[in-house]
Parts: sequence; structure tokens; C-alpha cells
Amino acid sequence: MTFTLAEARAADAADSLRGYRERFHLPDGLVYLDGNSLGALPKAAGPRLQQVVAEEWGEQLIRSWNTRDWIGAPQRVGAKIAPLIGARPHEVIVTDSTSVNLFKLLVAAAGLSDRKTLLSESGNFHTDLYMASGVADLLGLTLEVAPRAEIEARIGADTNLLLLTHVHYKTAERYDMARLTAKARAAGAMTVWDLSHSVGAVPLHLNDSGAELAVGCGYKYLNGGPGAPAFLYVAEHLQERLISPLRGWMGHAEPFAFVDDYAPAPGLDRFLAGTPPILSLAALEAGLDAFEGVTMERLWTKSRAMFDVFHALVEQRCPELICVSPRCEDARGSHISFAHPHAFEICQALIAAEVIGDFRAPDVIRFGLTPLYLGFEDIWIGVDRLADIMQRETWREPRFAVRGKVT
Amino acid sequence: MTFTLAEARAADAADSLRGYRERFHLPDGLVYLDGNSLGALPKAAGPRLQQVVAEEWGEQLIRSWNTRDWIGAPQRVGAKIAPLIGARPHEVIVTDSTSVNLFKLLVAAAGLSDRKTLLSESGNFHTDLYMASGVADLLGLTLEVAPRAEIEARIGADTNLLLLTHVHYKTAERYDMARLTAKARAAGAMTVWDLSHSVGAVPLHLNDSGAELAVGCGYKYLNGGPGAPAFLYVAEHLQERLISPLRGWMGHAEPFAFVDDYAPAPGLDRFLAGTPPILSLAALEAGLDAFEGVTMERLWTKSRAMFDVFHALVEQRCPELICVSPRCEDARGSHISFAHPHAFEICQALIAAEVIGDFRAPDVIRFGLTPLYLGFEDIWIGVDRLADIMQRETWREPRFAVRGKVT
Repeated sequence: MTFTLAEARAADAADSLRGYRERFHLPDGLVYLDGNSLGALPKAAGPRLQQVVAEEWGEQLIRSWNTRDWIGAPQRVGAKIAPLIGARPHEVIVTDSTSVNLFKLLVAAAGLSDRKTLLSESGNFHTDLYMASGVADLLGLTLEVAPRAEIEARIGADTNLLLLTHVHYKTAERYDMARLTAKARAAGAMTVWDLSHSVGAVPLHLNDSGAELAVGCGYKYLNGGPGAPAFLYVAEHLQERLISPLRGWMGHAEPFAFVDDYAPAPGLDRFLAGTPPILSLAALEAGLDAFEGVTMERLWTKSRAMFDVFHALVEQRCPELICVSPRCEDARGSHISFAHPHAFEICQALIAAEVIGDFRAPDVIRFGLTPLYLGFEDIWIGVDRLADIMQRETWREPRFAVRGKVT
Repeated sequence: MTFTLAEARAADAADSLRGYRERFHLPDGLVYLDGNSLGALPKAAGPRLQQVVAEEWGEQLIRSWNTRDWIGAPQRVGAKIAPLIGARPHEVIVTDSTSVNLFKLLVAAAGLSDRKTLLSESGNFHTDLYMASGVADLLGLTLEVAPRAEIEARIGADTNLLLLTHVHYKTAERYDMARLTAKARAAGAMTVWDLSHSVGAVPLHLNDSGAELAVGCGYKYLNGGPGAPAFLYVAEHLQERLISPLRGWMGHAEPFAFVDDYAPAPGLDRFLAGTPPILSLAALEAGLDAFEGVTMERLWTKSRAMFDVFHALVEQRCPELICVSPRCEDARGSHISFAHPHAFEICQALIAAEVIGDFRAPDVIRFGLTPLYLGFEDIWIGVDRLADIMQRETWREPRFAVRGKVT
């Protein structure tokens, strides 16, 4: 396959989603292939935050809890995530971080069974494994960690919960949600899905897939801003059976009755804990509003085309990079990753060339394909600069080997 | 005591802290006596957020974790709280909500002892009791709740942790932190202090008081914005002995090593969980920067004077309101509360008259005295409008009896 810059531009001109790019701020000259780590800035976020700060906080002050419905933000913003994941509006709520939400669901769901094993994948995103290990220690359970290929076979009579990340943060490998959920269910176990690298990236059908429990991230493909609050999903039929271990006042049946005894709020509200982070919620809401008018199916069609172009161009121009992401479209998410022994240095050299991807230890470079705001020309230029770095071995310059605190 | 409007204005003119008012936006005509619920807007917060959004997020994108030290924000902002509470910079970190931080400290500290009782105060702020009940259920402990007057006597051989709110959210009653901490310590128990209504309000000397564990709120007297992140304090000598039950990746010894096994970060960093909420942290930092140049002792001197004026004026002009806050300055915080059977309606009538306090069920009106931005004229006008409402019984108008979702 050859794919020229002119062809890339023609593809952008023909792209029916091209208008969505205008909803985002993209720095001049930068090729940003890291929207799966931190989504780009929606142009509406700044003005929306200024309004919340100057008018709602500055002028209305405490009254905004009622008059601007601050109190309803976790549910309102959750309801805007629901259509992106195939859930009903009252099955999604925005609160806390992905890590903290995982803890809530793992503890609450594990309590429904006497089984003693939490099962997850080795090499799963580490916060998931760390949170699960904390839960296991607290509840006297065992955390069993198995390679991806063995997960299905390991689901057994002692499996209490299966904890899986739907799209792998490093390789982009994607689980078949319906299949794994059914497999666990048949064995008497429930599954907790981490959707951090899926939501806003691939079509999700939680209800139709039989998914009962899930969490996900607000600052990747949802473009909610650095450290945006996360969400959690609980299928309707389970909501009244679960009690959050983090019994904050916002999850109480009557938060403003100021009574000593805890009584969980009806439905998903019980998974709220402290006071909702209004500024962060406003930015996330602006990110979600940027999806207005588009379906995940249309975005996915474009993502697949971008993946194919990226893959073909790298195969042709950078043969020393080994693609570790699945070629099969049903088996992957919306990023593409390559292994190379000097992945770190290559990633640094790319940043110096104004192409942002990210390095994932020990040897992977990862590129996020975000069809909402990226075009084929971005992809072409990104690979062109990558090819230049590989060909001229620019990455060997000593400055690119310096390790910072975060990469 | 008589205290005229002219005298109030003279007191403001003579107030050496008067200049700090200029650091805040206060709406024209509004008397805002609710800074203990949501602090007023620091003028620096809007521009600071715009910078974070437009430049750090919009232009620098993911690189800001390094180049703008997003990754160091929890520690940096914590270090700015430290001098306000008499702690060392590395003993305070900003993360999550007060509720979630309470959970972390209660679980981590309870694990150091075999004792079975968590002791707290009936009528304590309810999120504290709810979180403690969740911890008790998880760990197989008993939550014992006793009236304030009996707390000291209840500390016993089975007390694992004492959980107290330093300044009571409703009455403003303040515990003697050194005394209670020592009393518990002598009985072999540790104390967890909730500083939500103390921090930025009264002088705190956590190190000198022997305090070992504390949490506190960012959106009250610290003026960090609605739902601002909270902080936690662990005395240096304890830090390496505690393991957070919420083992998020940001609390790992090597967050970017992506290893499967959990290893806690050194020091207080282990109490981080998910990705730090950068936008909310930026607003909180602007709130803390507004304290620059002032000591808690100077603020407290002014708070005491404001309390005396408020108390005297209400006693004189609204004798039907019963003050439920302690007169003795060492025994209270920086708000003043009154009981009345129609407290709800009076509070609503006050809001209609542009005086914001808040109602706390079942029968209390609470007024926050925030010396950083309030003046004596505010106090005078506030009580003047209150007196008018009481005298003319405006609060009996049916519209003031309508209950909203939040009050």
C-alpha cells in the first residue's frame, strides 16, 4: 500500500466527521497522538469553566447547588456517558477516580458471594491490580492473576469476580465483552469491566452484552481534562443489592437530614461519597457535549480506517517497529502500539519532532487514534516524522535517553 | 453593647487585614455569611484556571505532567496547607474527598491495633459517621457513638481509634486537640481529626498538639471552589507504618514502571490513589495563595472580634434566637449558630434579603465569619436584615416554607 500526503488530504476532505475537529483546540504544528492518555481541549471547556467560576461560584455562590443544579451534576454528566456505552441514563454516574470506583464495585460485588478468588489479567493496567490486591487483603480473598490466554480457562467454581480491562492500555487488545461476561456468569461469577481505553473509542453495548458492573476514565477519549472525574456503571437489576464501602454523605438516602445512621440512597446515587467536584465535572461535561451529533459507530469506522493507514505506513517505512496491536478490528481498541528495544528514546525523539505518542515500559510506543479530532494528514505527518527518526537514527542522540519522572 | 453602622465602618477602616478582601470577588449587595460551606471566589482562581486550560492543557497537553509539574500538585498544594495547620510540608497531601481520605486513614490506622472499637461523637458531621460505619462493617469492628459530654469517659481499653471533628459543623464547638489526643494516646488509642471546619478558620498546631492523623476540606475556609479536593495529614513518624486500603497507581513506589505487584510509595505519597484532578487542584492552589502574608493568629483575632459583635447585636436585636455556639473563644470555631423552631423559614427569608447563611436540620441557622474577606459592616448589615425579618415576622410568608433539594 502506498498512501501519499495528497491522498491523506483527500481523505480528510471527504471525511464526514471533519467538522468535529473544529470543536477542539489543537496546537499549531503538533501531531497529537496521545488522546488516549489525555484528550485534547474542547473549545467549549474554557468558556464553560469561566462561566462556572465567575457566575456560578463567584456570583451565585452556595445557591448554585440548587439554582445551577450542581447537586445533580454526577447524574446529569453520567447520563451523557450512557449512550456512548450502551447503558440507560440512570445506570451511569460520575464520581471520584477510576481507582476509587473500582474499589467500590469490587468490595460491594464481592460481598454478594462466598467465593474467595478475584481473577484478573497479568499485565492489566496496574492500578486495577493494585486496587484488587487491596480489596483481596481487606476481605480475606485471593487475587489470582493469569495471562490473557489463560483467563477463560481459569474462571472456576471459586471465582468471585472477574476483573478485566476491555481494551488493553498497552497493546489495544480488546476482550469480547459479551462472551467473557457470559462465561463468568455461567460459572457463577460476576465481571467488573474497566472501560478506560474503550469509552469514546470503540462502540460499547453494555446492556446488550450483559455487563453488570463497569468503571471508566473521563480524561482519555472523553476529553474531560487532566485528572477528570471517572464514572461507574451498575446494571439496573443489581443497583439495590449493592452497598458501597465508601459511605459518604452524598450517597445517603437523605444527605441533608443530618442523621447519625447510614441509609443508602436509592439506585446508583449510593455510590457517591464526598461533595461532587463541580469544576472538574463542568470540564468533563464540555468534553461529552463535543460528541453531540455523532455515533460511536461512525467514529469507529473512521478509527478503523486510520488504524489501517497508520499500520500500512509504518510497515512500509519503519519495518524495524513491530506492531503489537491486533490487526483484526473486532479484537482491538482505537490505539496502535509498536515494540522496539529503544522505544523510550524513539518516543523522546518524536516529542522533539512535535509528534506526541507515549512510551509504555519496557519497550512499547503507543499512538492514540482519536477520530473525533484527528485527520489522515495528522497520521501521515506523524508517521513521516517517525520514519525520518528511524531512518536517520536520530533517537540515538544522548539527550533522548534522559528519563524524567513521568513519560 | 451598642454597635452602630458608623462604628462598624470605623472598625473596617482600622482593620489591618482589610486589604485581603480585595483578593476575593464578593457580589454587590450580598452579605455572604456562608464561607464555611463554600468559600468565596479568589480573584486569582479564574485567570489561573484559564491558564491551566488554555496553555497547560490546550497547548502543552500531556507534556504538562512534567513541564508544568502537574504530577507534583498534590504535594505542592499540600505543602501550602501545612503552615495553616502547624504541620511540616511533607506531612500534608491533597487528594480525593474528605470522606474518601477518612476511609483511608481509618482503615490504615485501625490495622495497627487489635482493638475492636471506633469511637465517635453522636451528631458528628454525618459523612464521618457513615464512613466510620462502613469501615467498622468491613473490618469487623464496632462503631460506638457517644454524646460529646461522654466522649472522654468512653475512651477505654478497647478503643482502637477516636474519630473527632475538631470544630463542630453545626454548633462550632471546638475540642481541645492536645488534650483529647493525649487522653486517647494514654489509653492506647490513636485519634483521627476532621479539620473541615477548622482549617483556615482557627489556629491549628497539629505537630505541637501531638496529632497523628487528620483530614480536612478544601472548599470551606480554604476557598478552593465547589467540591475542591481534600487533604490528609499523617505525622512523619507514622507515615511508613500505614498502608492505604485504596492502592491506586499514583500511590505506588514506581507508578510508571507498570509492574503487577503493589509496593507503597515512600511517605505520604502512598495515600494518593487515582490521577490527580488538575483543574480542581489549580483552583484550590489559588485559594491557598490568597492566605499569603497573613497568619492564622491575625485572622483569629479578627474572627473573635466579629463573633463578639455578631453575638452582641443578635442578643440585643433578635432575642428570640438562642445562640448555640460557645462564648468562650478557646471552645469554638469561626462560625456562630442560633436555634429557632422556624430556623428553616428564617434562613429562606434571609436569602431573599440577600443575606446568605445556612440552615442545619432540624432548627439551626449558621453564619460563617470569614475574616479574610468579611468586614464589620457586612456583619452589621447582616444582623440588621435579620432583625428586620424577626421583627416583622417576614419569615411567616408561605414562600419561605418551601423545601428544596438542598438547603
